[in-house]
Amino acid sequence: MQTTESARLRSEEALTLAKREPSRMRARFAEMHTADAAELLLDCQTLEQRLLLLRCIPDEQQGDVLLDLPENMQEALLAQLHPEAIGDVVEHLDSDDATDLLQAVDSAVADEVIEQLEPDERREIRPLMTYDEESAGGIMQAELFKVRADWTADRVLKVLRRWGQEIENLNYVYVVDDDDHLVGLLSLRTLIFLEPDQPILEAAERKFISVSPDEDRETVARLFDKYDLMTVPVVDGNGVLVGRITADDIIDVFQEEATEDMFRLAALSDQDDLTEPVLVTAWRRGVWLMVNLATAVLASLVIAQFEPTISAIVALAVLMPIVASMGGIAGTQTLTVIVRGIALGRITFHNAFKVLMKEIRVSVITGLTFAVVAAAIATIWFPRHGIALGLVIAAAMLINLCVAGLAGALIPLTLQRLHIDPALASGTILTTVTDVVGFFAFLGLATLFLL
Amino acid sequence: MQTTESARLRSEEALTLAKREPSRMRARFAEMHTADAAELLLDCQTLEQRLLLLRCIPDEQQGDVLLDLPENMQEALLAQLHPEAIGDVVEHLDSDDATDLLQAVDSAVADEVIEQLEPDERREIRPLMTYDEESAGGIMQAELFKVRADWTADRVLKVLRRWGQEIENLNYVYVVDDDDHLVGLLSLRTLIFLEPDQPILEAAERKFISVSPDEDRETVARLFDKYDLMTVPVVDGNGVLVGRITADDIIDVFQEEATEDMFRLAALSDQDDLTEPVLVTAWRRGVWLMVNLATAVLASLVIAQFEPTISAIVALAVLMPIVASMGGIAGTQTLTVIVRGIALGRITFHNAFKVLMKEIRVSVITGLTFAVVAAAIATIWFPRHGIALGLVIAAAMLINLCVAGLAGALIPLTLQRLHIDPALASGTILTTVTDVVGFFAFLGLATLFLL
Repeated sequence: MQTTESARLRSEEALTLAKREPSRMRARFAEMHTADAAELLLDCQTLEQRLLLLRCIPDEQQGDVLLDLPENMQEALLAQLHPEAIGDVVEHLDSDDATDLLQAVDSAVADEVIEQLEPDERREIRPLMTYDEESAGGIMQAELFKVRADWTADRVLKVLRRWGQEIENLNYVYVVDDDDHLVGLLSLRTLIFLEPDQPILEAAERKFISVSPDEDRETVARLFDKYDLMTVPVVDGNGVLVGRITADDIIDVFQEEATEDMFRLAALSDQDDLTEPVLVTAWRRGVWLMVNLATAVLASLVIAQFEPTISAIVALAVLMPIVASMGGIAGTQTLTVIVRGIALGRITFHNAFKVLMKEIRVSVITGLTFAVVAAAIATIWFPRHGIALGLVIAAAMLINLCVAGLAGALIPLTLQRLHIDPALASGTILTTVTDVVGFFAFLGLATLFLL
Repeated sequence: MQTTESARLRSEEALTLAKREPSRMRARFAEMHTADAAELLLDCQTLEQRLLLLRCIPDEQQGDVLLDLPENMQEALLAQLHPEAIGDVVEHLDSDDATDLLQAVDSAVADEVIEQLEPDERREIRPLMTYDEESAGGIMQAELFKVRADWTADRVLKVLRRWGQEIENLNYVYVVDDDDHLVGLLSLRTLIFLEPDQPILEAAERKFISVSPDEDRETVARLFDKYDLMTVPVVDGNGVLVGRITADDIIDVFQEEATEDMFRLAALSDQDDLTEPVLVTAWRRGVWLMVNLATAVLASLVIAQFEPTISAIVALAVLMPIVASMGGIAGTQTLTVIVRGIALGRITFHNAFKVLMKEIRVSVITGLTFAVVAAAIATIWFPRHGIALGLVIAAAMLINLCVAGLAGALIPLTLQRLHIDPALASGTILTTVTDVVGFFAFLGLATLFLL
């Protein structure tokens, strides 16, 4: 692969160079891609080392480097910078990136920084700061190229040559009416094909997909995925063009949302990060482990009700984890399929019932299958209880796998309905259900039929 | 949100219309976005219904609709079409999409279809068919706009006006030398700013990121993410330009890879799909449940070694699932963080040791914490065993959480080292380890110190 990797330094070398010859390190950073510079900072051991390197990075690159770092590191570094220094960094960023960075500093400092900016930038950034970070407004950028509907192709090209230089990923020209309502999109490619005196509105696409700034960014990301978009305009409730979102930002949204879902399914805080201090990570995980301990104790309380039964037939203690474990795995399978299906927009209110029915059918089939297998194992392993022990474990297995499938589907669908993230805590609720039902069904049936 | 959703029909209405007035349904499809048409097909109950609708979709849209459907459905529908019909569909697609579609049909049929194509298209698609679907070559498209290095801006614009109409997402012009080696990139935006007689090589970016067609598509996706790319050229070992990849295709790669990892972590086949028949799903999940049953029996065999101990102290049967469960959760936390870190390129050979050390430290801290908590619960719950039972569960908890952290980190790191997907089967291996170690440590220590 030919990448800018060849320009890569090890962080140790970079630190040595930064200490001895800061001007040479500055020159190295200047010709390096900001993503590679961010990796160097990431590899450092301490905040001081990171600050040392950051101070060697030219102002116009510092913002992009900071934005490439995990949030906790970004905040720690920004907390060490003076408002003026932050201002110097922010003024080189696109409005969406500037907003992201300012949202990582103390709000009083952010206000101070914004005060110092050029009036133009201030006007762009202020409204962006008001949007929720999880909304379309939170990821859109204000920089875009808009033209009046009555202009000719020639005039558009002239203005574009004059003002368009600064705009990144400029692939579309936005056509607005006198009140800034978006009325059409014109790709640069189409623009090139037009006759000089052709009115652009004739050539613009009049039917296009747009989003509202309040739209959930996950919904926006799904639109990009569904319609294979490269960019989308953001239009407020009155039809006024307020910004645009590009595919490279959407990639970040997808990555973050997928990480969030995976982490939540695994009883992890979605802030858990490789670069966090050990104690912070231990605390975040400990909270979820504590929740799990409570549910495990609940399952143990169920077992405790059947102490006399276990005393009489110790084989039950040997076999009971099998029933609980199979329920946990089967339920997790269903849960994961449903959570992912919701995240990808494949499961909606419209087809939820169909999906639920399928999961129930699958559960009944696997439940019956593993009831037979478990019965065979139990009967062969503990022959002195005859077929009775086998029948008890078979019934418990069938019950638990059916409950697991039902719970694995209903928990996320219900959370979704209540507008709660379907991945949140659903794994813990699920295994509580499958453990409690598994132990109760198995030991309860044993008490009824084996004693 | 303003989308094309307003054009949406329910699949029942569409089916009725397709039967009674196919020409009206055809007109509806013609003005519908292909992604919306695909949703209608997805909502149908049977293959026959889907075929009925598909036949109403104009040829030039059928390909995009098929590609938007899950793979199993795509294959089933294509198997019903004649090679000539497939050819009519394929000829309207970009080369990368055409290749994807042809890879979903029987290879003899695919050859027959390719034979019928125009020589031009045949020449584009044949080499693409040879690349692995998981490689850069498998997702790149051959359609791109390339120009010679010695051309002027004016000549490029002229040629572009003549030939560029057909190319989607044309934002870059690729500058090649006489032997088709890629020597520069020129954005349309830059092109517009050039003087007519300016040689384009002067204005082109000479330092750019490119990828080899054999590169793993996941690695390519990480490049897009890291460097915020919108498009990347694909260049073979000799530096010859062979294709390009755009960000909208990368979104699909990220979604698929994230789904694959989530599914594998949850003991699901990565082919598990909402639209599969119940029996296929039951079979796929049953295979993994069978593996889990085997490991659960292994854990039960461990318990069985301690039957006399459990007979003597039934409290052990009550408490033992707590130790195993906490190990499973703690191990899954570590496993998920590591698997996701590898997928996002955050964990590399370079920092794996540092990451491992952190996980061990976290495990020791949480292990000590929950050892104390578990000891307190056990001592209060079963006072007749005094502090001894508490000490036994504390030691077992500490051992199991440390083993869980170590296994949760080492299993995916080792698989990655062996070039096996770190998510594959690692969840099952992990819970086997934490169950076996949990039961063995708890019951073993109890046998030594409590009897």
